[in-house]
Amino acid sequence: MRDEWFIRGNVPMTKSEIRAVSLSKLELRPDSVLYDIGAGTGSVSVEAAMQMPAGQVYAIECKEEAVGLVRQNREKFGVENVTVIQGRAPEVLSGLPCATHAFVGGTGGKMEEILTLLLKRNPSMRIVANVIALESLSGILELVKRLEIQAEVVSVQVAKAERAGSCHLMKGQNPVYVISMGGESR
Amino acid sequence: MRDEWFIRGNVPMTKSEIRAVSLSKLELRPDSVLYDIGAGTGSVSVEAAMQMPAGQVYAIECKEEAVGLVRQNREKFGVENVTVIQGRAPEVLSGLPCATHAFVGGTGGKMEEILTLLLKRNPSMRIVANVIALESLSGILELVKRLEIQAEVVSVQVAKAERAGSCHLMKGQNPVYVISMGGESR
Amino acid sequence: MRDEWFIRGNVPMTKSEIRAVSLSKLELRPDSVLYDIGAGTGSVSVEAAMQMPAGQVYAIECKEEAVGLVRQNREKFGVENVTVIQGRAPEVLSGLPCATHAFVGGTGGKMEEILTLLLKRNPSMRIVANVIALESLSGILELVKRLEIQAEVVSVQVAKAERAGSCHLMKGQNPVYVISMGGESR
Amino acid sequence: MRDEWFIRGNVPMTKSEIRAVSLSKLELRPDSVLYDIGAGTGSVSVEAAMQMPAGQVYAIECKEEAVGLVRQNREKFGVENVTVIQGRAPEVLSGLPCATHAFVGGTGGKMEEILTLLLKRNPSMRIVANVIALESLSGILELVKRLEIQAEVVSVQVAKAERAGSCHLMKGQNPVYVISMGGESR
Repeated sequence: MRDEWFIRGNVPMTKSEIRAVSLSKLELRPDSVLYDIGAGTGSVSVEAAMQMPAGQVYAIECKEEAVGLVRQNREKFGVENVTVIQGRAPEVLSGLPCATHAFVGGTGGKMEEILTLLLKRNPSMRIVANVIALESLSGILELVKRLEIQAEVVSVQVAKAERAGSCHLMKGQNPVYVISMGGESR
Repeated sequence: MRDEWFIRGNVPMTKSEIRAVSLSKLELRPDSVLYDIGAGTGSVSVEAAMQMPAGQVYAIECKEEAVGLVRQNREKFGVENVTVIQGRAPEVLSGLPCATHAFVGGTGGKMEEILTLLLKRNPSMRIVANVIALESLSGILELVKRLEIQAEVVSVQVAKAERAGSCHLMKGQNPVYVISMGGESR
Repeated sequence: MRDEWFIRGNVPMTKSEIRAVSLSKLELRPDSVLYDIGAGTGSVSVEAAMQMPAGQVYAIECKEEAVGLVRQNREKFGVENVTVIQGRAPEVLSGLPCATHAFVGGTGGKMEEILTLLLKRNPSMRIVANVIALESLSGILELVKRLEIQAEVVSVQVAKAERAGSCHLMKGQNPVYVISMGGESR
Repeated sequence: MRDEWFIRGNVPMTKSEIRAVSLSKLELRPDSVLYDIGAGTGSVSVEAAMQMPAGQVYAIECKEEAVGLVRQNREKFGVENVTVIQGRAPEVLSGLPCATHAFVGGTGGKMEEILTLLLKRNPSMRIVANVIALESLSGILELVKRLEIQAEVVSVQVAKAERAGSCHLMKGQNPVYVISMGGESR
């Protein structure tokens, strides 16, 4: 789904291409239960919800403005299986039904704590994280080593052409690390 | 879908991350009709078919070995809405029902000819092409200019960590240009 | 040389890493004669001049503001072998001594014309171009094909960490195509 | 300098573009003293030595085959200011004159130990490291934090066109993290 289809405000948004890769790595099924941690504008929640009509998304977001955007986007796209939770992970997770999948887009510096809790609640949970801070990447690698699990680490660097007169100029976007772990393989 | 889930042989394959971005750009609907031109292993055909249960995929491929792989992968994933067409685009296209979408992965050097024909048959067809040759990119840009249409050009460069002992070494993949054009916007 | 060492104003500047790669591809000798076409801030001229104490740089730039910056940077770094030429390539080239090397950073859309002239004046000139417009890249590839010469095409995509509190966030820069041709090999 | 100019064998080699960026970040002066730790083929040693005619390079390498290549390349390029040291860092460093600069290309997993020692011997040493393992990157970031110094982290991803008939196909190389620290600023 195109970025411009979403109502955005000033909230940072997972870019279309990174969202596509991340959703693909999540390997959602029609009836999955997904935590979207750090939901931002809700673009991941909405696109995931449309891929799993019998499933349920919990969009967790602490910022007031972003919570409003998630609600607006949920309405705009008419998806009814997105529940918006205002609060912080990992605290708010304890009150929610257990998930089969989690997308971690923002953690407020608590990446390791959150991942540890998620894997404790459901050791076969499929988790995909988006990371741009090198320190968060380090934290995940250490956790993965400590827990003796395997993670796939991919960096995705997108450049998009901008029109300038009759020319297309390539503009670089920020590279994003997409880290995937857990889940039951086919 | 993971690359290793597909039966592959020695046929080049659109990598998982590029496939995810390309399918996202296609903006398929449940009942779309898709040409997959240069189907290779059939990974795009199969993943597209699963996203549009009421739709139809025509997987066009000229190489014997690849045609066999498309059939095997269609069977492995139990998708019934993929029709395999052995032959070359643009020649074989004339005998097929008109498509709403086209993915162009391989053209044997006939990119411009194929795109021109596709847009003539259905001016609002949504087309996504994957390009690694700079000359093909040039050809598309010229065509786009001549036809006075707009195209989105994105380059996607993926690096994937490989395990080496206790380390993750980043290994670069080839950058792919993903070019999208046409379609009716929402 | 670090970008922040140069006096910059609002003029676009070849970034440090791209400048390093481009200068390396130029393969300057201590007594080379270099045209720096589209000199901008003069960062390439200055760094090249320091690498060839017995050589000469002609910094060609049409914009008033940029010409002033080239002069300021020449003074700041105390390099005396940079001559600033205000004007446009290819027009101004005819009045200059023949060069052994050329760096083409900006051409105002006249890439092909400029390269053709350069190679006519000195068929063994070593030329390195920096390109961000896909149309310029296409133009060079066509020229190379028509002239039946070989060119090396490299794309360089740099991301640089920015400090945010105790974190390093990777920020993507624009990918640049660095194209090298001609010159006498060792 | 082009990769193919060096005698290579089967030893991994810092690629031309990465070498150019790394040497630029080193900010060598004509009389610098450089440790090249994990010298490999000696390409960094040779190119550095040519940039500092009054300086001295200590090429440190533990593998027999690579030591031979460094010597061969030193001879091929006629650089007399490269001393080859067979052995492992940090052990062998204690017997060497103190350096003003260090390039760390390979550490056999001892990155933190080596950097700590280098900065102890000369707190204003300019150090540039090339890293492809995410764990080494993490190690450097932790060290930098612990020592309360600043480091510049850049990732460089190069793709190079390969000729295939009349086409140029872009082939991705591995992304390299180039980390720079220390040194006296101008």
